[in-house]
Amino acid sequence: MTLTDEPTAPATDERLTTLGAALRTALDGPYARERAVALATFPADDALRPVAYDVEQSRDWCLARLRALDAAGFGSAGVPERAGGHADPLEAVLTFETLAKADLSVTIKSGVQFGLFGGAIANLGTAWHHDAFLPGVTSMELLGCFAMTELGHGSDVASLETTITYLPETDEFEVHSPTLAATKAYIGNAARDGRMAAVFGQLVVAGERHGVHTILVPIRDESGRTLPGVTAGDHGHKGGLLGIDNGTLTFDHVRVPRRMLLDRYGGVDADGTYGSPIEDPTRRFFTMLGTLVRGRVCVGGGGAMAARRALSIATRHALRRRQFPAPGRPDGVLLLDYVVHQRRLLPLIAQAYALGAAQNELIAALVHVQGDDASTERDQRELETFAAGMKAMQTWFANRAVHEAREACGGAGYISENELTALRGDVDIFATFEGDNTVLMQLVTKALLGDFRHAWSALDRSGVVQATTRAVGEMVMERTAAGLMLDRLASTARRRPEETTLVDRGWHALMFEDRERHSLESLARRMRAAAKSGGDTFEAFNRLGPHVQFVARAHMERVTLAAFVKAIDTCADREARDVLERVCSLYALSSIAGDRAWYLEHNRVTAGRSKAIGDQIDALCRELRPHALALVEGLGIPRGWLTAAVLAD
Amino acid sequence: MTLTDEPTAPATDERLTTLGAALRTALDGPYARERAVALATFPADDALRPVAYDVEQSRDWCLARLRALDAAGFGSAGVPERAGGHADPLEAVLTFETLAKADLSVTIKSGVQFGLFGGAIANLGTAWHHDAFLPGVTSMELLGCFAMTELGHGSDVASLETTITYLPETDEFEVHSPTLAATKAYIGNAARDGRMAAVFGQLVVAGERHGVHTILVPIRDESGRTLPGVTAGDHGHKGGLLGIDNGTLTFDHVRVPRRMLLDRYGGVDADGTYGSPIEDPTRRFFTMLGTLVRGRVCVGGGGAMAARRALSIATRHALRRRQFPAPGRPDGVLLLDYVVHQRRLLPLIAQAYALGAAQNELIAALVHVQGDDASTERDQRELETFAAGMKAMQTWFANRAVHEAREACGGAGYISENELTALRGDVDIFATFEGDNTVLMQLVTKALLGDFRHAWSALDRSGVVQATTRAVGEMVMERTAAGLMLDRLASTARRRPEETTLVDRGWHALMFEDRERHSLESLARRMRAAAKSGGDTFEAFNRLGPHVQFVARAHMERVTLAAFVKAIDTCADREARDVLERVCSLYALSSIAGDRAWYLEHNRVTAGRSKAIGDQIDALCRELRPHALALVEGLGIPRGWLTAAVLAD
Repeated sequence: MTLTDEPTAPATDERLTTLGAALRTALDGPYARERAVALATFPADDALRPVAYDVEQSRDWCLARLRALDAAGFGSAGVPERAGGHADPLEAVLTFETLAKADLSVTIKSGVQFGLFGGAIANLGTAWHHDAFLPGVTSMELLGCFAMTELGHGSDVASLETTITYLPETDEFEVHSPTLAATKAYIGNAARDGRMAAVFGQLVVAGERHGVHTILVPIRDESGRTLPGVTAGDHGHKGGLLGIDNGTLTFDHVRVPRRMLLDRYGGVDADGTYGSPIEDPTRRFFTMLGTLVRGRVCVGGGGAMAARRALSIATRHALRRRQFPAPGRPDGVLLLDYVVHQRRLLPLIAQAYALGAAQNELIAALVHVQGDDASTERDQRELETFAAGMKAMQTWFANRAVHEAREACGGAGYISENELTALRGDVDIFATFEGDNTVLMQLVTKALLGDFRHAWSALDRSGVVQATTRAVGEMVMERTAAGLMLDRLASTARRRPEETTLVDRGWHALMFEDRERHSLESLARRMRAAAKSGGDTFEAFNRLGPHVQFVARAHMERVTLAAFVKAIDTCADREARDVLERVCSLYALSSIAGDRAWYLEHNRVTAGRSKAIGDQIDALCRELRPHALALVEGLGIPRGWLTAAVLAD
Repeated sequence: MTLTDEPTAPATDERLTTLGAALRTALDGPYARERAVALATFPADDALRPVAYDVEQSRDWCLARLRALDAAGFGSAGVPERAGGHADPLEAVLTFETLAKADLSVTIKSGVQFGLFGGAIANLGTAWHHDAFLPGVTSMELLGCFAMTELGHGSDVASLETTITYLPETDEFEVHSPTLAATKAYIGNAARDGRMAAVFGQLVVAGERHGVHTILVPIRDESGRTLPGVTAGDHGHKGGLLGIDNGTLTFDHVRVPRRMLLDRYGGVDADGTYGSPIEDPTRRFFTMLGTLVRGRVCVGGGGAMAARRALSIATRHALRRRQFPAPGRPDGVLLLDYVVHQRRLLPLIAQAYALGAAQNELIAALVHVQGDDASTERDQRELETFAAGMKAMQTWFANRAVHEAREACGGAGYISENELTALRGDVDIFATFEGDNTVLMQLVTKALLGDFRHAWSALDRSGVVQATTRAVGEMVMERTAAGLMLDRLASTARRRPEETTLVDRGWHALMFEDRERHSLESLARRMRAAAKSGGDTFEAFNRLGPHVQFVARAHMERVTLAAFVKAIDTCADREARDVLERVCSLYALSSIAGDRAWYLEHNRVTAGRSKAIGDQIDALCRELRPHALALVEGLGIPRGWLTAAVLAD
């Protein structure tokens, strides 16, 4: 995909309903043109791995497919080809999303090769690395691994045990796995295809540790034999993504030239002296990890596409399948006419729209930070938080949605030709890789507390904390355009909360903001008490774990609603806008309904209002039911790509 | 397994903790001896299908494994071998559960051959069928299909289109698939192994339809070629259960002798006259389907075993795996010491115990109805309702638990050698086959309403409905020993609800009973209004769908709590009993917490009490954490059967 190919109108042979086309444009938002081009030019034949392929066949197919896609412009898109080359984060993310509308093994293999391996070289390396290796990366002549995770250290990167020790006598680094726990694990391209690995380990220079750095280590010769000192293991069969050759790597005193260290943020000069442009080791560590944020943006977006694909299949099936005759329906009732079935699928579709709007905001933030715009370190930090939360929210959503779609298709959903079970198996691990979701949600809350603490302690000195907690909450939360818009909406409801209807956007905004603000404030209070409690501080904080998860979710839901509201505000098509308003209400009420115990406990709603929410959700489902086809068209999976047998004419 | 093999003590080489052994005995309850014998004698080597096997290899392996197990007494156990032979429902169900602690393809293949095909012959056939076919069924010389489901009719058996037409001229039946929708679909043993099928279709005699009946149709010759007029299709690769050769069957005017009709509940005599011992066609239909209730008891119990296996793996892993150092824990914190991780696994373990107790009650009810005891038609109806609900609750639980276990094991959980993803794929369809769970939950509520309506209208005539709704609810709900015990407990709380602690069993009982009674009463009111509303009655009832699902769940939760309370009451071991009391509180509070919005909306709890529930759940997790190993030992999956690589020494 080359984004400069601008057709006057999106070239696609799909015949969408007018509403479907308008919804798709609205959901694609600022990237509607680019996404339409991608759909129109993507080679969608042979798009899915034949499910009966064994591990070896799957790997062969996946590699060949990725090479073909790379040749067609859908592989390394966005990765610079040399030093000073153009890195286009937008192109990279949109390409990943497009790939994820088809086979997820291919998508992840692309992510490993271009996003992670290529990304490590581009972001952590310097000009020599770029010139020496990026051409091979983008052409796929040099297949590589991103060797970060260790058997003993999944989420805990700072504790990696692999060592990268400088040897002054030969001006080399020695890469070594000192323990079994140091084994690099779950590494894509490690079992078979990789020729080189970007290895993360503890840099040791003259006996001094400088924290985690990354070094390029050749692991196989051209014929595919592992090099001396390198041992590669094969994870073999997995729960999905069989196209990826995940494996282990261990290093037994493997030596590589000094220049192989990716030294943008820290390296060793010819004198054997360590130097870094970032003095503080912790800041350096997070700066290095921070460059990898694009991977999380991609994985979250990819998970969302899997969910959209599954929801498209299940909804289209429910518009064809009849079961049980009923009065006035002698041929049986369409599945989607059952309220229980509507409740199963339509709120998920609403969530897909809401998350899509938020993902667009996330992409914009990524482009701002990694693109040509001037951005601050604060922008970078906010991007990381946003990306962590969106990755977790979207991939958990994907797991739920794909499973629900499977069940909603009954027995047919279980037959592989209907594609849902493979999708389920593939998307499963999205909740774990690129950061375990539970850990990512902790990061979100930690970042919020950081902001909060900062604002709070400034106020605390002036002794007005109790009186101004509300103001603090507002200070923390409202910074983006979308956030400000939501806040304005909330303020309209605040003046007359119980007079508003259940579909009043101002009331939704108020509910979402209140949930986040109040839970964050109370968490901060509990944190403070825990810190002061003495005793076992780990245990004191540990007990706040569920609260920490709640705050992160409340925050991400609020950010998502804000993005959706803003997106609808820019939608020019009147009919689409009208439908989207209801979709947004369905999203908002589903979220509120899920937490209505919290709202009741905190006196945010009355019992009567809380009870009425379910009826209002049913009413919205009923109103959206006639638009179900257009809604799934809008999700952007072309009908022609839905090769599930159950949808065949 | 022969239940008459009574060792003086259960022979097993497992070394359980004292508490683990006591918990297992308590959970196994009235069938502790039989289950211990089964574990000690089950051939557990080669117990799981190698995951990399393709479809054909999987089917070969599965068939061979089932033959070996059948030879060892773990196949046809409980199926009579001839007319007048001994049918032992207890042996059948316990054997199925034992199989389900290992490979689920083998388990389901056993279910198809012995439970469904054999069960149809045993329950719907008469002496000639028994003598002619049961020996071949139990020896596996005659492999068969249970051909009920049609492509167009999954849950709606009454609408089956296949015809079974009597031909007086030749004294034969002609079996025919008149439409594409009449194709028998998802049929186990149809694609490859089956030689005969028990085909469900509309019986037509002299132009008159007599509703659904079942006939035996040979489908393949000894060499495996399909017989003339029979077309078999192959569903090929599926989301799991690759060992089962699911396929389609269509019949093109296939003729079979008259005696092949399974005619216990209706047949044609030599004069070509239809006759049935059950006059009413609807009653006849439900009587025939009712004989198949054992399948649902098995499938629910099997799903529960899959969940227990997954929880055993994840919990044992969490007791070994450390991640992130913390103050006082330089080597990292054990996963199970994180409160968030405890909240992830321990409430599911509690639910596994609660459901296990309820499954024991269900088995007892099955034994009462199908065993030698005298039982009434009302007992049979109640058994069907109970079995439908338990199948849905346990298989949904299994899907949730297995996925949660996968995520809780991180990347390792995704590697097939750790067995969770195969388990996930296999158990997925349990939510759909033997009755779609959503439809089964409707059946539960329908049965409750039936009882309710009966009791209510009796009272209605005396004009006291409004004053006595509470009494009606009690009449409907309390009939079993467990139910009465729960009711007594509730009555202790009723006198002082807000004085009780959150772990007071009486308060739990009150909350569970109130949830069921109130939601059932309000549904009955809404039903009555819907019936009187005029207009589109389908739509009027359709809108009650979510309420119908809620009532069924509330009922099943109450029944489950009652069973658990009763089971604990019979536990003699003091330490085990103490732990089980907390497990029960964790189960009860998790259920109440999930619905605390409902309790708040209906003024059953105050906001303060509702907020405190989460802290109490955390406290219970903390108290149970030291017993985690014993708790999974109690789940009854022997350590030696847990071959997940991640648990290797």
